[in-house]
Amino acid sequence: MNLAAKDILGTQQLSLEEIEGILDTAVSFKEVSTRKIKKVPTLRGRTIINLFFEASTRTRTSFEIAGKRLSADVINISSSTSSTVKGESLIDTAYNLEAMNPDILIVRHSISGVPHMIASHIKCPVINAGDGAHEHPTQALLDLLTIREHTQQLAGLKVAIVGDIAHSRVARSNIHAMLKCGMEVTVVGPPTMIPVGMECLGVKVLHDLEQAVSQVDVVMMLRIQLERQNEGLFPSFREYSNLFCLTVDKLKHSRKNILIMHPGPVNRGVEIALDVMEGPHSVILDQVNNGVALRMALMYLLLGGGSETDH
Amino acid sequence: MNLAAKDILGTQQLSLEEIEGILDTAVSFKEVSTRKIKKVPTLRGRTIINLFFEASTRTRTSFEIAGKRLSADVINISSSTSSTVKGESLIDTAYNLEAMNPDILIVRHSISGVPHMIASHIKCPVINAGDGAHEHPTQALLDLLTIREHTQQLAGLKVAIVGDIAHSRVARSNIHAMLKCGMEVTVVGPPTMIPVGMECLGVKVLHDLEQAVSQVDVVMMLRIQLERQNEGLFPSFREYSNLFCLTVDKLKHSRKNILIMHPGPVNRGVEIALDVMEGPHSVILDQVNNGVALRMALMYLLLGGGSETDH
Amino acid sequence: MNLAAKDILGTQQLSLEEIEGILDTAVSFKEVSTRKIKKVPTLRGRTIINLFFEASTRTRTSFEIAGKRLSADVINISSSTSSTVKGESLIDTAYNLEAMNPDILIVRHSISGVPHMIASHIKCPVINAGDGAHEHPTQALLDLLTIREHTQQLAGLKVAIVGDIAHSRVARSNIHAMLKCGMEVTVVGPPTMIPVGMECLGVKVLHDLEQAVSQVDVVMMLRIQLERQNEGLFPSFREYSNLFCLTVDKLKHSRKNILIMHPGPVNRGVEIALDVMEGPHSVILDQVNNGVALRMALMYLLLGGGSETDH
Repeated sequence: MNLAAKDILGTQQLSLEEIEGILDTAVSFKEVSTRKIKKVPTLRGRTIINLFFEASTRTRTSFEIAGKRLSADVINISSSTSSTVKGESLIDTAYNLEAMNPDILIVRHSISGVPHMIASHIKCPVINAGDGAHEHPTQALLDLLTIREHTQQLAGLKVAIVGDIAHSRVARSNIHAMLKCGMEVTVVGPPTMIPVGMECLGVKVLHDLEQAVSQVDVVMMLRIQLERQNEGLFPSFREYSNLFCLTVDKLKHSRKNILIMHPGPVNRGVEIALDVMEGPHSVILDQVNNGVALRMALMYLLLGGGSETDH
Repeated sequence: MNLAAKDILGTQQLSLEEIEGILDTAVSFKEVSTRKIKKVPTLRGRTIINLFFEASTRTRTSFEIAGKRLSADVINISSSTSSTVKGESLIDTAYNLEAMNPDILIVRHSISGVPHMIASHIKCPVINAGDGAHEHPTQALLDLLTIREHTQQLAGLKVAIVGDIAHSRVARSNIHAMLKCGMEVTVVGPPTMIPVGMECLGVKVLHDLEQAVSQVDVVMMLRIQLERQNEGLFPSFREYSNLFCLTVDKLKHSRKNILIMHPGPVNRGVEIALDVMEGPHSVILDQVNNGVALRMALMYLLLGGGSETDH
Repeated sequence: MNLAAKDILGTQQLSLEEIEGILDTAVSFKEVSTRKIKKVPTLRGRTIINLFFEASTRTRTSFEIAGKRLSADVINISSSTSSTVKGESLIDTAYNLEAMNPDILIVRHSISGVPHMIASHIKCPVINAGDGAHEHPTQALLDLLTIREHTQQLAGLKVAIVGDIAHSRVARSNIHAMLKCGMEVTVVGPPTMIPVGMECLGVKVLHDLEQAVSQVDVVMMLRIQLERQNEGLFPSFREYSNLFCLTVDKLKHSRKNILIMHPGPVNRGVEIALDVMEGPHSVILDQVNNGVALRMALMYLLLGGGSETDH
C-alpha cells in the first residue's frame, strides 16, 4: 500500500488493502497519545491546514491534536474568518492556500463535493473532513478501527446503522467501507429517512429497531439533525425517539457482546438513552479516542510514511 | 504541597500553603518571559485545551502564551466553533475532549459551576478560567503575586475591593484568598452592588470610596459590566463614576505607597481616571505580566512539577 | 541596514536601502518553504501576536505560517474574540498584550492609523497588516519581490495600477515603494476612483485601460470592494468591468513579457477575466507564495537578524 500524496475524499475510493493498511498504521500510533510526552517528530516542519467551513469541535480538534502530536505546524481556518466572506471563490481560496506550500489540506464543507473540487485543482493532498450529506471517510475509518479493536476481525460482522440514512455522510462512508471489509450492513429508520433503492448498494433495510438490534454485532446510531425537524421527515422528536431511540428495553434481545456506537454529537434521549450511552456496551468514547490515532496515521501515510514497508 | 492532577476551581478550596506554593513557583517562572528565547521544555508533548464559552482576549491569550512558553501544545476551542452550537451537552463535550487525552482542560463559562461540573466528570485536571459570577482563581492568584511583589508579605495588609461586588467572580476569588493570607478586606460600592451579609465572610463593608482608600495599602477596582446598566443597580454611569471612580482627588488622603489594581478590561473614566490608571501607583500591567507566570506555574504544578520538593 | 526593533507601518517610511535589504533577505528565505522540513530554528522561543480586527484568510495565514516556519510561537487574536467586544480601548488592548512580552505585534484594522497609534504606545515592534484605506506595506513589498524575480531589476520599470485607487491601501503602499525604487507608476480607473491631485505624488493618471496596458511592463489590478457598489462610484459592476476588467482583448497591444498581478481576493470576471487570471502572464499565485518569504524576512530583521552584515 502506498498512499503518499493521495487524497482521502471518501471510503468509496479506498481499496480493502488500503483500509486495512490505514487501520494497522493507526494501531501503531495509538500508543503515542498514552505517553507522558505525547509527541513524535515524524512530521516536524510540515504544514497542515484545517479549512473548516462548518462548525465542529471534535473533528477539527481531533485533526489539530493529531497534527501537533506528529510535530507538524497546524493552521486553523474557519469560515467566519475566511476570505469567502469577501466573495472569493472556493477555488481561489484553495489556490492561494496551496501557494503557501502546505503539506496537507483538510476540508470540511456543508456542500457535497467541495473537497473533491478543491482536490482536483491543487496538488497538495486533501482529506475530506465531511462534505454535506456525502462522505466523512475519517469517521468511517475510526469506526472500523474501534470495531476491530473489540472483535479482532471485521469480515462477517453484522452491523445496523440507525437513523437518518438519507442525509448522513457518516452512514454513506461506513456503508462503503464496511461492505469492502466483508461486513453485512442493515440500515434502519423510518421510510422517510431511507433512500429508495438502498438494497442496490448491497445493504438490508429494516424499519424496526428492536428486530434489527437482535440480529447484529454492532449498532451504530446516527445523529438526528435538529434543523431537520421542520422538514416533515418525522412527526416530532418524541415520535422519532419512541421508535428509534436505543433504550435498554430495545436491547433486551441483543447479543451479549453487542457494540453500541454513535459518531456524536449525541442528542441525549433522542437517538440513545442515557443509560445505554454510558453503559458497558457503548464504545462512543473509544471512537473519539481512536479518531486522533486514525488521523495521525492518515497524515503520516499521505506524507510518504510506510510506503517502503508492506503493512 | 502537591497539586499534581488536582483541579483549580476556586481559591476557596486552596489552602494557605498551596497558595504560597503557587506564588513561589510563579516567581521562578517570571524570568522565562524576560529571556530572548522565552521557552522552557518543561511541558513538551503535553496537550492543553483552552475551552472558552465566553469572549476573552487577555485570559485566553495569557493561558495560551503560558502553555506555549512551557512547550506544550495548546488547542483553542471557543463557543462559536463548538459543538454546543449543535446542541451537544456540556458533559458530552467534556467527555469527548477527555477522550483525546489532554493533560489540562481550561474552562471559562458564563454560568457559575460549569468548570466544577466538568471537573467532576473527567479525570484530567481542570482550571477554572472564570465561571459566571462565581470564581476566577487564576486572577486572584496573579493579584496576590502582584501585591506580594511590591509589599514582600501579605499578612496584615489592608485591601479595598471596589465596585460591583455582588456580580464579581474576581472579588469572590480574591476575598477567599486574601482572608487565607491574613489580609484585611473591605468591600466598597453602592448598597445595590454589595450582597447583604457580606460581613459574615469576615470582610468590612463601606460605601464611601475616599474613606476606604484612606485606610488601605491596596485598592482593587472592579470592572462595571456595561450590560448591567439597565438592571437598576445604579442610576447611570455618570452617577456611578461620580461616587466610585478612582480619581487623583479621591486618593488625596491615601497612603504614600498605595497600590492600585484593576483586573481589566478597564472602562476608562468609569471605574478609574486615566491619570490614576497610568500613574505611579498603578500596577495594572504588572497584573497582566504576572498572569503569564502564574499560569505557567499552575500548569507546571498540576502536571506533577515541584511535588518532590517542598516549596 | 538595521531594522531591529523598528515598526513596519508603511512603505512611505522605508528607505530604498531598507526596501532592497528586505527583498534580498526574503529571497534567502524562499527556499525554506520548498524543503520537506519547512522550518528553521531562527525565532525559536519568540512570541508573535496576530491581532486582526478585520477578516482575512490569506494575510493572517501568511503571517502565521511565516512565524511558525521560523519556529516562533504564534498567537492569533481576532476581533470577534477580543476584549474590544467588552468596550476596552484599543490602547489598553495593546498595553495588555505588551505586558505579556510578545516579540512582534501584527495589526490589521479597518480604521487608518490604528497600527501607528498602537506602535506609538508600545515598545514591541509592530507590523501593519493593513489599516483602512491607508497602507499595507507587506503587500507592496511582496509585490516588488514578485516583480523583481521576473525582471531582475526594478528601476525604470513601468507599472499601471488599475481600479479603486482612492480607497486602496495596496495602491498607496505600492506607489510609495515603487517610486522609491525608480519605477514609473500610472494609475488607471474611472475619475470617481482616482483622487484629485494624484499627479503631485509623481504618478501619471489615465482613464483608458487598453491604452495604459500597452505602455507598461507590469499591470496590477486592484480588488473592487463589493460594499462600494452602492456609493455611486460607478453605475454597476457590469459597467465597471466593461471598461476596467482586464481581458485578453484589452491585452492585445501589450508587451510580450507583461506581468499581471492582483493582491486578491479576486472577484473573477469583475477586475480580471478568468483566462487572463490563469494565463501565462499572471503572477498572482507567485505573489501569495512570496508573501510567506517576505514576512519571514521581516520578522527575522525586526528581531535583529541581519543587522551585523550588510545586505
